[in-house]
Amino acid sequence: MRAFASDNYSGIHPEILKAIETANQEHVGSYGNDPYTEEATKKFKQHFGEDVEVFFVYNGTGANVLGLSAMTKSFNSIIAPELAHINVDESTAPEKFLGCKIIGVPAPNGKLTPAAVEERIIRVQDQHHPQAKVISISQSTEYGTVYSIEEIKALSSLAKKYKMYLHMDGSRIANAAVSLGSDFKSFTRDAGVDVLSFGGTKNGMMIGEAVVFFNTSLAADFSYQRKQGMQLHSKMRFISTQFNTLLSNDLWKRNATHSNNMAKLLATKLGAISSIRITQPVDANGVFAILPQAIIEKVQEAIFFYVWNEKTNECRFMCSYNTTEEDVNTLVEAIKKQSA
Amino acid sequence: MRAFASDNYSGIHPEILKAIETANQEHVGSYGNDPYTEEATKKFKQHFGEDVEVFFVYNGTGANVLGLSAMTKSFNSIIAPELAHINVDESTAPEKFLGCKIIGVPAPNGKLTPAAVEERIIRVQDQHHPQAKVISISQSTEYGTVYSIEEIKALSSLAKKYKMYLHMDGSRIANAAVSLGSDFKSFTRDAGVDVLSFGGTKNGMMIGEAVVFFNTSLAADFSYQRKQGMQLHSKMRFISTQFNTLLSNDLWKRNATHSNNMAKLLATKLGAISSIRITQPVDANGVFAILPQAIIEKVQEAIFFYVWNEKTNECRFMCSYNTTEEDVNTLVEAIKKQSA
Amino acid sequence: MRAFASDNYSGIHPEILKAIETANQEHVGSYGNDPYTEEATKKFKQHFGEDVEVFFVYNGTGANVLGLSAMTKSFNSIIAPELAHINVDESTAPEKFLGCKIIGVPAPNGKLTPAAVEERIIRVQDQHHPQAKVISISQSTEYGTVYSIEEIKALSSLAKKYKMYLHMDGSRIANAAVSLGSDFKSFTRDAGVDVLSFGGTKNGMMIGEAVVFFNTSLAADFSYQRKQGMQLHSKMRFISTQFNTLLSNDLWKRNATHSNNMAKLLATKLGAISSIRITQPVDANGVFAILPQAIIEKVQEAIFFYVWNEKTNECRFMCSYNTTEEDVNTLVEAIKKQSA
Amino acid sequence: MRAFASDNYSGIHPEILKAIETANQEHVGSYGNDPYTEEATKKFKQHFGEDVEVFFVYNGTGANVLGLSAMTKSFNSIIAPELAHINVDESTAPEKFLGCKIIGVPAPNGKLTPAAVEERIIRVQDQHHPQAKVISISQSTEYGTVYSIEEIKALSSLAKKYKMYLHMDGSRIANAAVSLGSDFKSFTRDAGVDVLSFGGTKNGMMIGEAVVFFNTSLAADFSYQRKQGMQLHSKMRFISTQFNTLLSNDLWKRNATHSNNMAKLLATKLGAISSIRITQPVDANGVFAILPQAIIEKVQEAIFFYVWNEKTNECRFMCSYNTTEEDVNTLVEAIKKQSA
Repeated sequence: MRAFASDNYSGIHPEILKAIETANQEHVGSYGNDPYTEEATKKFKQHFGEDVEVFFVYNGTGANVLGLSAMTKSFNSIIAPELAHINVDESTAPEKFLGCKIIGVPAPNGKLTPAAVEERIIRVQDQHHPQAKVISISQSTEYGTVYSIEEIKALSSLAKKYKMYLHMDGSRIANAAVSLGSDFKSFTRDAGVDVLSFGGTKNGMMIGEAVVFFNTSLAADFSYQRKQGMQLHSKMRFISTQFNTLLSNDLWKRNATHSNNMAKLLATKLGAISSIRITQPVDANGVFAILPQAIIEKVQEAIFFYVWNEKTNECRFMCSYNTTEEDVNTLVEAIKKQSA
Repeated sequence: MRAFASDNYSGIHPEILKAIETANQEHVGSYGNDPYTEEATKKFKQHFGEDVEVFFVYNGTGANVLGLSAMTKSFNSIIAPELAHINVDESTAPEKFLGCKIIGVPAPNGKLTPAAVEERIIRVQDQHHPQAKVISISQSTEYGTVYSIEEIKALSSLAKKYKMYLHMDGSRIANAAVSLGSDFKSFTRDAGVDVLSFGGTKNGMMIGEAVVFFNTSLAADFSYQRKQGMQLHSKMRFISTQFNTLLSNDLWKRNATHSNNMAKLLATKLGAISSIRITQPVDANGVFAILPQAIIEKVQEAIFFYVWNEKTNECRFMCSYNTTEEDVNTLVEAIKKQSA
Repeated sequence: MRAFASDNYSGIHPEILKAIETANQEHVGSYGNDPYTEEATKKFKQHFGEDVEVFFVYNGTGANVLGLSAMTKSFNSIIAPELAHINVDESTAPEKFLGCKIIGVPAPNGKLTPAAVEERIIRVQDQHHPQAKVISISQSTEYGTVYSIEEIKALSSLAKKYKMYLHMDGSRIANAAVSLGSDFKSFTRDAGVDVLSFGGTKNGMMIGEAVVFFNTSLAADFSYQRKQGMQLHSKMRFISTQFNTLLSNDLWKRNATHSNNMAKLLATKLGAISSIRITQPVDANGVFAILPQAIIEKVQEAIFFYVWNEKTNECRFMCSYNTTEEDVNTLVEAIKKQSA
Repeated sequence: MRAFASDNYSGIHPEILKAIETANQEHVGSYGNDPYTEEATKKFKQHFGEDVEVFFVYNGTGANVLGLSAMTKSFNSIIAPELAHINVDESTAPEKFLGCKIIGVPAPNGKLTPAAVEERIIRVQDQHHPQAKVISISQSTEYGTVYSIEEIKALSSLAKKYKMYLHMDGSRIANAAVSLGSDFKSFTRDAGVDVLSFGGTKNGMMIGEAVVFFNTSLAADFSYQRKQGMQLHSKMRFISTQFNTLLSNDLWKRNATHSNNMAKLLATKLGAISSIRITQPVDANGVFAILPQAIIEKVQEAIFFYVWNEKTNECRFMCSYNTTEEDVNTLVEAIKKQSA
């Protein structure tokens, strides 16, 4: 089976699988008290600076919700794009675990703007109203777009103005970094992000995300919050070693470069088909395009993908680290064949 | 490093690691919509009966808390042994996620008795008081003891009498099965258990636990509860394939038989040392023994283990599927040397 | 001090205060086990039918949140108008207590329409997405408008179509009944409402709201939920006797008729001032009007009211059971004077 | 009806009812923005010092749970006597709202001792275990006993030693003050209490409790927590004026002196009956005594009271501000008659 359904349809990158095998030696301490976790933590510090704090968790929902739990009290609200993963794709995990309200702001290209956010920061210090405390953005976004460093800085300035925090859902952060031609630090820590969900699974890992604190005062209780949040793994070394490998020898960059390139290739080829309209800038590894309704199901039989918006027939095509040119061609050919 | 600290100090059993490698082919559906999950589910049905429902989650805390969430409303209480994992080793995950109170009942050998439980079922239908709804037992227990089938049936009868449910934390269920010389079904489903946490990690898996519903009416909402509980993995095949392997070719039994045997061997050797007192029946893969305080730290330097009770110097020695006779000898020799 | 700020600026209606005095005799059972509560419950049954269930609580937030807790599981969502009290005026009590997400739907006149609601019932049975379970409406609305019986029936039909429930926040239900020229039952129970928050405080009581279950299967656990929700009063007779009085001798109707009439009078007089624009139909006891920004603060000094929308200068004027014609004249004169 | 069932079977003290009537004038601001609340707050400051913060709530469960919410994070535990109101009489409100675990410590006379508490402060900084943060005591206790000032200071010292807080459930604080012959401040603020639930309802009010912060840094978010906790009343003046009256002209002291005296009288008379055994020191307004099982129901018919412990036939007799000597005699005579 081959698919453009999601970057999590792909498996484990061979180098990462190899690392799991290598770590499978002897007894080591559990819950992160092991040399593999120490090593992986060092790698994060190389990328983000010595004075950050890093915690490994299981999945993106866990990383986001727990990261947000370190930034909020239960009477707070969190401002996010309407289609943010935390708003529409994590069941009610945020509300249940945090108690907070998520304010979904329409964001046609997936990106929050300072103006749109500021409009929602209302009734400050009014005890009857949820108190806005966090701006949460996804980088790259759910629409495959990427914030520029300046756009992120503008949002962090706004956050500071209102004594709020800036949270980044980086489940596809490597794709953003490659898109920006940047290291990780420039558009996260240096741009004013307080807490980052650093994604591993979608970029070739088997399992694992990291919560990275740049504002380390927020991390004081996080070990308790992670355990309470049911996100602390006992045989931690097997998550840690994956991150260590992903962050070594530019594996993160090689993987993301490939998936971004495949998305660009796909967009180029789709753009040449007259019945197709590309709806979003292809900044990262996703392509959004409106297909004629009549052909969608037939094309899905050839190679699977998701309809993103049933009303507009906008479809989403996600490329992964192991999407091949052949996959792209299979899709394009199927569309052409059905459109004929 | 070698240790008796916990069965989670061990790594991945080679057959399971092999299975992960084998599953790392092509694209497959995410979140359990894949052939590996289908296969693993079949294996559970072979062991427990066709009409059970199975859900894979990340860890034991997740399995326990989510399983209990299917059995309770937030005004309920859960009766468990005082030293149950859910009562003392899962932070406040149960209270936070369930809203329920856990009633910890003193249980010197780790096992609840019907009499001790019934004494705590009080103020039924009194709106001011938490309403008892679940009896939760661990099999094998935190003290390395194992309930007989009759003991479990007595508790399930009591549960039925009060319209309560019986929950089993089976993070070491294979060790219990081997100890009883039984298949899984006889002392779970057939003994009246409603929901089971089936452990994988402590018996040779890298990651993964299963929530098994015998009372399938309780499972209706579980897919939502798992997602909300941040315990749904995207690349699910890599958890499923581990379970498939563990439940094939008696791997679960081979592993647990070995760890149980190592515990018995250790207990025999420790029992022969006059300064040591074994404090619990060695039914499964743990040995509890009081050591002279003066020697504990020195022995820990030779091979690590935990002091279970600082006041009595009771120590816990956990054997895993890959504990060796040499490990046992290292420990025993160190004790003898320090005791001399 | 006189004000149009809120109907809760007014005090206790004399007949209700008298009832409190009368109930202050001897010892009676606590927590509702008393003859006053029995009597008040009977009154509710006279109005709504014998087979309803009624529970008294402290305040509107409590009534709403607890009523919704009887209708939802924590992975559900609740669809309500964007400016519903539960969405913007109850801190994050709903999210914290229920775990649910509230989906705020733009509703220019405060009323949900079936079309607007149905558009938000998406991703049914998708485990990743909050599952819509309740439509919540306010009657009268936060904008002083009133749903017709037909409008309510249309929403309850939609709810049934999707196996959802219809909740009504009736903190100003008497004003709605008077506006419709209807008894309570016709536009609540008979129109398909499942659970109702019946307001007392805003219509002349000192304290107290009621949760009325028409769908009584939802009430099975409510006594536990009320206690857990910190909304069970010990000296219950003093809340009950207020409701008994409010529902006797048409006091509810007299009070609401007066406040509605005062709103109409005010609207008529304001409508005659050229610089003022009435923005909403004046169906109940509130008048919404845009005032010239320059005069607002000066008029507030004469008689206080709230600016509802800082951006448009829309102001809200709430009339209560004891608003006087003199109060209306004071306001109108102040506006005229400042506008001159 | 007359009863010794609970101090909340009594009604409103006439001076307090009078105050409600007096406050029922004109319009005033809602939610505490009114002169009555200002006045009542001043009274609290007269009793406890200028630099305390006071918030009025509805009931004891609300005061306790919200006060504790200001002192805890959800991974904390709270150490309290096994039969503390927060542990056995508030449903699971604490667990649900706080997420915390309550550690119930056996306390034969209702009082915690430093030794018993310290034994439960375990596994500090262990991420797997709930972290003890609050010692919660009731003054007077659920057993009608009263802590000495020294006993409280010993507990607050222990709290400080472990960076924990001391919480006092003062639902019967006036009875304790009278029992100690003390002002309020000496055994609360001056003894190291951080947050106090100050009871009104059981001492002659119709409704209302106060949360008093001596450690005012804990109060920073309390207005939000109160609203979120559904404990903020709109027509606040009617709660405030009750407190103002209770704290004026020694009404609190007159009421508590009377109820304490009635308890002493009752204890004296019961103590003279040979078949009766008084089980607890009668420090405040409750008498605990074991009655012959055969007579309990018959005596309850004469004048109602509760059996506190079904197994031992220990009964609880609560005296209120308006318990009469005649009530005492009715009870005593009924016991004598049935015992004959």
